[in-house]
Amino acid sequence: MDNRQIVLASRPTGVPDDTNFRIETVSLPEPGNGQILLAQKYLSVDPYMRWRLSDFKSYSAPYDLDEPISGLGLAQVVESNSPHLKKGDWVKGLFPWAEYVIAHTDALTKIDDKIGVPVYRYLDVLGFVGYTAYCGLTTLGKPKPGETVVVSGAAGAVGLLVGQIAKIYGCNVLGIAGTNEKINLLLNEYDFDEAINYKTSENISQELAEKLPQGIDVYFDNVGGEITDAVFENINTNARILICGQISQYNDDKPEMGPRFLPVVLKKTATISGFLASQFAHQFGEAGKKLTQWILEGKLKYTETIVEGFDQIPNAFLGLFSGRNTGKMIVKI
Amino acid sequence: MDNRQIVLASRPTGVPDDTNFRIETVSLPEPGNGQILLAQKYLSVDPYMRWRLSDFKSYSAPYDLDEPISGLGLAQVVESNSPHLKKGDWVKGLFPWAEYVIAHTDALTKIDDKIGVPVYRYLDVLGFVGYTAYCGLTTLGKPKPGETVVVSGAAGAVGLLVGQIAKIYGCNVLGIAGTNEKINLLLNEYDFDEAINYKTSENISQELAEKLPQGIDVYFDNVGGEITDAVFENINTNARILICGQISQYNDDKPEMGPRFLPVVLKKTATISGFLASQFAHQFGEAGKKLTQWILEGKLKYTETIVEGFDQIPNAFLGLFSGRNTGKMIVKI
Repeated sequence: MDNRQIVLASRPTGVPDDTNFRIETVSLPEPGNGQILLAQKYLSVDPYMRWRLSDFKSYSAPYDLDEPISGLGLAQVVESNSPHLKKGDWVKGLFPWAEYVIAHTDALTKIDDKIGVPVYRYLDVLGFVGYTAYCGLTTLGKPKPGETVVVSGAAGAVGLLVGQIAKIYGCNVLGIAGTNEKINLLLNEYDFDEAINYKTSENISQELAEKLPQGIDVYFDNVGGEITDAVFENINTNARILICGQISQYNDDKPEMGPRFLPVVLKKTATISGFLASQFAHQFGEAGKKLTQWILEGKLKYTETIVEGFDQIPNAFLGLFSGRNTGKMIVKI
Repeated sequence: MDNRQIVLASRPTGVPDDTNFRIETVSLPEPGNGQILLAQKYLSVDPYMRWRLSDFKSYSAPYDLDEPISGLGLAQVVESNSPHLKKGDWVKGLFPWAEYVIAHTDALTKIDDKIGVPVYRYLDVLGFVGYTAYCGLTTLGKPKPGETVVVSGAAGAVGLLVGQIAKIYGCNVLGIAGTNEKINLLLNEYDFDEAINYKTSENISQELAEKLPQGIDVYFDNVGGEITDAVFENINTNARILICGQISQYNDDKPEMGPRFLPVVLKKTATISGFLASQFAHQFGEAGKKLTQWILEGKLKYTETIVEGFDQIPNAFLGLFSGRNTGKMIVKI
């Protein structure tokens, strides 16, 4: 049968655009013995994928040219040659950007679509996004009741959770985001204590100082750049700074220049930790339990930006860099 | 009796010079009941004092205008009204920059001048300098045998010790310093594996990559600026970066610009820790024991730059910023 897939047509220099991607129609073989034919239904596009479009060596290998991009997806079983899965079952896995996928059961995680939340939530709160927010904030951030937590990209996939988890821990929370709609959402729907629109703020550092005269104890950074410069000017002694993302910097071919802040890190005896959820794999069980519990208790809300259509995958990905998403960016195929 | 002291005449903007200091002759009263009259013999000048000349709020308060600068010193008892100390005893304490000091015994630590090393070593290896190197490197750096440690300001007070302790821990050690004499010292006297003269290097980053193709696991930074930029380009996954000093940046009134490196910190899941020896006070006992043991075993060598003359204190301090010192900068009064 015919199958559409999206391959890396060229490596971007600077900001990627749709010429870096190409939709191809290829022929899909019949699933073999022990194999499963899956129809991909929801697919996660994530900022880290920008690195893999370049050939920078990091924790995950660059995508190959003319080969399909891959990432986290949710799929339904169409045809199963395995006793472990039957038609209609939902599974999660690392899939190519393709409509149909053939996979072995050992590369798939069966998911329960009857727990009372939309199934695509396995791509965010009940998956890496949730683990990233929970493990990063609690293990590296060590938030204590009464402390002040600032999160950048606060209306993004991870940021929405970080703010809510910090509130559950009894912290004062300020979120930074880039539209008034997002600011309203943070303050009115998600109970952040304070919020700053970095695009309209005349002086982010001064606004932080005014809104948080007590200073900043924990900074959960998804964005980097000038937002982070402003935060460094307002950190407290022994501040914990967590580098989860630097989306403002991913499209630079060489480092942007900015004010040196290591003297402040020294004077404030602060700690900066670059981290990936994968380093907390041993905590995922605990994280999943806590997150599920908080959802069921009504303490944790969530939202997604769902883009529809297989051919919209590249646009959804590119939209991450212009802040098009509130909450997790997901493509529905 | 008359006593000379050095006061803060004005707060420097940018690079301090001798106009920021003033020598005054004041009258010293007789020591009262329980008080000690001390003659200060050796005095420590340290980079952190630069902060205290400005009115930046950090862990230690700014020096007051027209009041004496103060710091760590070694003194001998001239006259004692206390049963705990007698004439000729050596003590360590926080003293004003003055020839004579009157103090209470509870502000003094008696030191043993018969342990086989010069008494001024209590201002470096057997004091905060030693504790800084030992506690910072071992507790935050967690060096493992076979790992690669880079230290900037390698021929400076702390750097000389960091390199040697890293060698004791079985690491491969590269030191960065600013004169050929210092480079020779590191390679030939202190058994560093590699050394780079940052002032004559055409490309520090490239030289690091050539000398350390295995990459850098621990970076102990005393200097900051372009040296540190070059190191960030060569760090390994899970690198530990310790910010002990940023002497290249202390005279800047506003932050210098430099390449943003948080994206690298993220990709390499590195950790940056600004630290002060004082946060390891609970480890000082252990540190003192280890350092003394290594000295007696011949595993740890040391050197000082000793400047003579009370009126030379400001010049000795200013010399820290031009790399005039090898090992600890000490003034002999």
